[in-house]
Amino acid sequence: MNLNIVLFQPEIPQNTGNIGRTCVLTDSKLHLIKPLGFSLEEKETRRAGLDYWPYLQLEIHESYEALREKYKDSTFYFCSTKGDKYYHQVEFKDGDFLVFGRESSGLPEYIRNENFKNLIKVPMINTTSRSLNLSNTVAIIAYEALRQLEFPNMK
Amino acid sequence: MNLNIVLFQPEIPQNTGNIGRTCVLTDSKLHLIKPLGFSLEEKETRRAGLDYWPYLQLEIHESYEALREKYKDSTFYFCSTKGDKYYHQVEFKDGDFLVFGRESSGLPEYIRNENFKNLIKVPMINTTSRSLNLSNTVAIIAYEALRQLEFPNMK
Repeated sequence: MNLNIVLFQPEIPQNTGNIGRTCVLTDSKLHLIKPLGFSLEEKETRRAGLDYWPYLQLEIHESYEALREKYKDSTFYFCSTKGDKYYHQVEFKDGDFLVFGRESSGLPEYIRNENFKNLIKVPMINTTSRSLNLSNTVAIIAYEALRQLEFPNMK
Repeated sequence: MNLNIVLFQPEIPQNTGNIGRTCVLTDSKLHLIKPLGFSLEEKETRRAGLDYWPYLQLEIHESYEALREKYKDSTFYFCSTKGDKYYHQVEFKDGDFLVFGRESSGLPEYIRNENFKNLIKVPMINTTSRSLNLSNTVAIIAYEALRQLEFPNMK
């Protein structure tokens, strides 16, 4: 298993479906932190995830705290436009956790504050107040980590 | 302007909308080669592109040949699972063209054959016959090119 992708209270099923697809194709595990903005049975999730969902390594967590408690020895990075470090400046390790906030509001302030040294952001043109689609952001950061790890078991 | 993203006969409006969003946020131009599988007025394109579409640098081309004729001095790379070079092994230049095929069937064989030295692929786990979502693939390759170019005008 290569990476751990964590979605904090995701809202849009098609994003989670696409991110699940990326996880399967990169041998990464997907962690979802409740509450979810949709049912995992919903047809949009299955449609966006195509035939990948059955192959997904998936963990559902009751809370952010439960996830941290379970994986207390792992390194966690948090994607936030409020970070001052860029994603490509981090040296990722096998098994690192990459945490992504809600589509509408990102990560809560208390999580950002507790982890300010591990906030990472993706460079963008500063013309609008909006940012990249969530599933694209996950793909960009995961593939940079995998590039650094020399794409284990991938070809 | 940083990169040129080309979609060859795209079929799914939400992908094109998301890719347009990535183009706006990276100061890249989007090129669409006809025929398109949807109308650019369609509400899915606007919804997926959110408020970005008006800011998009967009060119519509009648054919692949018309695009190549217009930009005959530029370097073109073609994303294909049939390539034998990986995307991160290419040295990208400012203004390069990155060409992506249809969601269902990729690039036509004649385009792959004519450009076999410039086919690039994204590493994946070999467990299924499917591949990454198109807009994720565009984001991964575009951000690797932008990383190499040191993210011009991005922050």
